[in-house]
Amino acid sequence: MPPADLGEFELIRRFFSRPGAIEPNNRGVALGIGDDAAVLDLPAGAQLVAAVDTVVEGRHFPQGTDARSIGHRSLAVNLSDMAAMGATPAWATLALTMPSADAVWLEAFSIGLLDLADAHGVCLVGGDTTRGALTVSVQILGHVPRGTALRRGGAQAGDLLVVTGTLGDAGAGLALSTAMPATPRNPAVDELIRRFEYPTPRVQMGIAARGVASSAMDLSDGLVGDLPKLAHASGLSAHVAIEKLPLSAAARAVASDSQARDWALAAGDDYELLFTVAPPRYVALQAAADRLNLTLTTIGEMGAGAGVVWSLHGSTFKPAHTGYDHFGRASTQITV
Amino acid sequence: MPPADLGEFELIRRFFSRPGAIEPNNRGVALGIGDDAAVLDLPAGAQLVAAVDTVVEGRHFPQGTDARSIGHRSLAVNLSDMAAMGATPAWATLALTMPSADAVWLEAFSIGLLDLADAHGVCLVGGDTTRGALTVSVQILGHVPRGTALRRGGAQAGDLLVVTGTLGDAGAGLALSTAMPATPRNPAVDELIRRFEYPTPRVQMGIAARGVASSAMDLSDGLVGDLPKLAHASGLSAHVAIEKLPLSAAARAVASDSQARDWALAAGDDYELLFTVAPPRYVALQAAADRLNLTLTTIGEMGAGAGVVWSLHGSTFKPAHTGYDHFGRASTQITV
Repeated sequence: MPPADLGEFELIRRFFSRPGAIEPNNRGVALGIGDDAAVLDLPAGAQLVAAVDTVVEGRHFPQGTDARSIGHRSLAVNLSDMAAMGATPAWATLALTMPSADAVWLEAFSIGLLDLADAHGVCLVGGDTTRGALTVSVQILGHVPRGTALRRGGAQAGDLLVVTGTLGDAGAGLALSTAMPATPRNPAVDELIRRFEYPTPRVQMGIAARGVASSAMDLSDGLVGDLPKLAHASGLSAHVAIEKLPLSAAARAVASDSQARDWALAAGDDYELLFTVAPPRYVALQAAADRLNLTLTTIGEMGAGAGVVWSLHGSTFKPAHTGYDHFGRASTQITV
Repeated sequence: MPPADLGEFELIRRFFSRPGAIEPNNRGVALGIGDDAAVLDLPAGAQLVAAVDTVVEGRHFPQGTDARSIGHRSLAVNLSDMAAMGATPAWATLALTMPSADAVWLEAFSIGLLDLADAHGVCLVGGDTTRGALTVSVQILGHVPRGTALRRGGAQAGDLLVVTGTLGDAGAGLALSTAMPATPRNPAVDELIRRFEYPTPRVQMGIAARGVASSAMDLSDGLVGDLPKLAHASGLSAHVAIEKLPLSAAARAVASDSQARDWALAAGDDYELLFTVAPPRYVALQAAADRLNLTLTTIGEMGAGAGVVWSLHGSTFKPAHTGYDHFGRASTQITV
């Protein structure tokens, strides 16, 4: 069927309302796609948690990125916000703007989005498709037991500063995919590109950290962009020993230590979690990470004062970049 | 301050977190803008109602449209979805994609959006700003007492088909503003253009219709585009006497009856409500409309069968257009 014949209704029906493993009526969906709005039932005693994140072609992913990756990432960045709150994601709405209704593209996009939704028990309950430059906004809705949401502002002086997984891989992957699209690739390069194209939101770790971590946020804009926000929200300073940043073997295989560190600090898109935790509770956080086969690394601690103090092997360090900011100072420039 | 110096954080703070008449903590906002997600408290016994709608430059409004109108409309189209469900709107998130961060544009846009939000007690609780072609997605969250949401599928054979306000004014306004931007305008033209630029979502009427109307939807794509969806959802046919469509004096002052009817049928963007109501309950619906100074017009009725049967003074009528559909058949073309 040529794109011009695909009506909006048919589009939504055909690609975004597949019968999944998850039955909407088991997920609190009283009324799903197809009316003016969705009607949803929160669990008893829960608070609603809501976020929105947009990905734009040419900004968040290069032109020509596989549509399946775009679908995956547009939901993953939102699931990561749920993870950062310790929230259980439940429902999503999709605002999809695209230049034309290409059935092949839409099929790949919807597979990327819906596979990840199914993996996290998330129902797509509404959407709007419009014609324009490729822009994907997902609104995610989830819930927490009342009063248990993890905030950025809960850190105490003396808390440990902890991150999940490894940092900088997505930045490396983006740089590599742009720099050497046609080059024969080795496994390390493939792994890094996969980390950019298919990030894993740490949803279960966020949920496990409720009542254990004192604050949390996700690392979307890079540590140098994000950590100052947590420090500011908590009214504290953060002290980071850069040599402790967890770098993957893949990142170290393709670049110098200095470059790998730079990716870890400033490239963004990792969607790992940053926690603060009181030292006596670290063991509980580590145990949760172990159950999830997730590495946890202490990279510093919180102190009195304000701002972030970076050190490398005991010496003061000034990061070259300041994190991703769409409208601010020049975005992080990375060269391989 | 030149646009290039406006960081994303500063943007959000400066334009979208103004202290309004409505205190967030009186509106169920446990945690608002500034964390990874918002944390929200639904009233006891309520169901959550969620929708998303996007407006795109060049599709939903002409290039050069006043930013205040864009801000107003981006929220109004979503409030209209709440109205169509009988829901009380409570919170919104904003995904704003724009080519550059122009402080003058942003100020006007945010005034348009936040004035309407304040008027309906809606708190903006989250957002994402990205650089790209001008695209505004608003996600609206509201609530209804459990089981009271108005759906499209509740109509019964014999129910009256009723619309609020007048139809076609927004379509007339869009056509006029495009056709005669520099012409000296008369009050009728100004009124029609205002109806396009500043639509009034019928939120209070939607709430009043809970428990009275048997089904509801809002008229965003024009009666010929929208009514078939209600008929289909209810498993019925709809019968419309086109001579009964409520046309404004302004629309009739600027165009032929045939043109005014065409706008009313197919131009869309009116954001009036379409109800079905059992004849014995019509009086209650009318009383609610009277209290809100809103006209209510019976345009037909529901019957057995399927599809929409249009008549004009007793003769079968075939509308020339089929309603707005972004990716489907050619959009409604209007010439003045």
